Amino acid sequence: MPESPTRRASSTAPGRYRPVLSDAARPSTYEVEATDEHGTSRAVAIAGEHPLTLYVDKAEILTIMTLGAAPEALAIGYLRNQRLVERLEDIVSVQVDWETNAVAVVTRGGLPDLAARTAKRTATTGCGQGTVFGDLMEDLDRVRLPAGATLTHAALTALLDRVRLHETIYKQAGAVHGCALAAQDATSADILMFVEDVGRHNAVDAIAGRMWLDGLDGADKVFYTTGRLTSEMVIKCAQMGIPFLVSRSGLTQMGHDIARKVGITMIGRATNRHFLLFTGAERFLREA
Amino acid sequence: MPESPTRRASSTAPGRYRPVLSDAARPSTYEVEATDEHGTSRAVAIAGEHPLTLYVDKAEILTIMTLGAAPEALAIGYLRNQRLVERLEDIVSVQVDWETNAVAVVTRGGLPDLAARTAKRTATTGCGQGTVFGDLMEDLDRVRLPAGATLTHAALTALLDRVRLHETIYKQAGAVHGCALAAQDATSADILMFVEDVGRHNAVDAIAGRMWLDGLDGADKVFYTTGRLTSEMVIKCAQMGIPFLVSRSGLTQMGHDIARKVGITMIGRATNRHFLLFTGAERFLREA
Repeated sequence: MPESPTRRASSTAPGRYRPVLSDAARPSTYEVEATDEHGTSRAVAIAGEHPLTLYVDKAEILTIMTLGAAPEALAIGYLRNQRLVERLEDIVSVQVDWETNAVAVVTRGGLPDLAARTAKRTATTGCGQGTVFGDLMEDLDRVRLPAGATLTHAALTALLDRVRLHETIYKQAGAVHGCALAAQDATSADILMFVEDVGRHNAVDAIAGRMWLDGLDGADKVFYTTGRLTSEMVIKCAQMGIPFLVSRSGLTQMGHDIARKVGITMIGRATNRHFLLFTGAERFLREA
Repeated sequence: MPESPTRRASSTAPGRYRPVLSDAARPSTYEVEATDEHGTSRAVAIAGEHPLTLYVDKAEILTIMTLGAAPEALAIGYLRNQRLVERLEDIVSVQVDWETNAVAVVTRGGLPDLAARTAKRTATTGCGQGTVFGDLMEDLDRVRLPAGATLTHAALTALLDRVRLHETIYKQAGAVHGCALAAQDATSADILMFVEDVGRHNAVDAIAGRMWLDGLDGADKVFYTTGRLTSEMVIKCAQMGIPFLVSRSGLTQMGHDIARKVGITMIGRATNRHFLLFTGAERFLREA
């Protein structure tokens, strides 16, 4: 089972700001009985799924269905990716309580326009059904991805090898999507964090939260996801300032349009030695 | 490319109530250029993705990101599955306009508590992030699935064969989830409708909409999905009154809990000759 991102985050350098956090990861898998096509009964591991209601300064924001492996990072990353909080220092504490399925975030001085922003946003929140599309598209005009960053063919191959060998909940139980943040140089790649969740946007948000907690900048990183490259996935990657987006799956037309517009280097259908480079080819260095 | 559910729905029996509907399916795939691992450029089909903002009696409800293959059925099914509309006869018209990315639904006499219901709901709408969980769980107490319905091993095998052979957008372009509604008897199964969408809940909702349009009852049907069996998927299937839920993918703990509670017959990891029967075994008839 992958370790909790929150737990790993506690090894950050002294002096870096850190909110008060609970450490309330839930078990990722549970066993249930099933019978197969031969009528044979067996124990099968399935992924956890729990409602988690997010409160900011006691105001209810929304209920997220989550695996619960990284709830504190998820809450922080959700607020970051929804542009509700501008910087980690504005968050005083994040306390998850699974007795009440609640995560309580306390901010420094409150979020003055929270009511107005969530009122506009809640009509368009979610994934597939309802999205933060409108607001996020406006914010995209502010995104500047580093033109000089490069990804080599060798580093991409190394990343795909690392991902393939990574121990995952997916291999045990399925029904989750995974996201990884990787560091890379000309010849190799290292997975810095790997988060899985029943909601694919939760996994992205938890990565965003942990990047803040660990003080990591996206400008030289690669974002990997097992999920499809839809509009919202590309928008979130761009907002995190990450120039390289790699997926095992395919992409949508709007994901493609947005990637082209913001100049992200987007690679889809990446498994083993195969991949398709769709946009931002100028940052990708092929083998000589 | 699969035909538009809306178009097929127009073959319904005379005398059945039918709202005034546009017929505004969008192309499902688009071609873009990509280069593969050898640096070879090629045209690749990718799935469409379009924002579609739902208005009911001129009030904005939410924006859905959709493939756009069955927008009218999607709008109707969304309103049905969100319990915003009680019956098809309350819907006067559904008009999709891709110039403005809008679908306008006109109801008979308005939905009196729409503002109150969406205010409560919007904080919890979506998939993975935000869900209609709270309200829908309450509604589940009212669901009664037929105890006498049965599914034979032979019919399940026939269904999985039909699904495997079905021409899909997924095979062309990936990045979509598919749902099917199937009729079945002791020895065979027929796919009545097959809907794909970039959002897996959109595909379910479009099926729900078309079931209303076609006047189909769920009590003897099988619902198939390529997607994971999360809580919301199981809830929607139960609400449509369908006793059999089959998925190619895995399931979550909460999907399992809800299936057990409502007594749905849930089968996961169903491909070719393999499957796992998780709940509701009393309705499944194994081979002698």
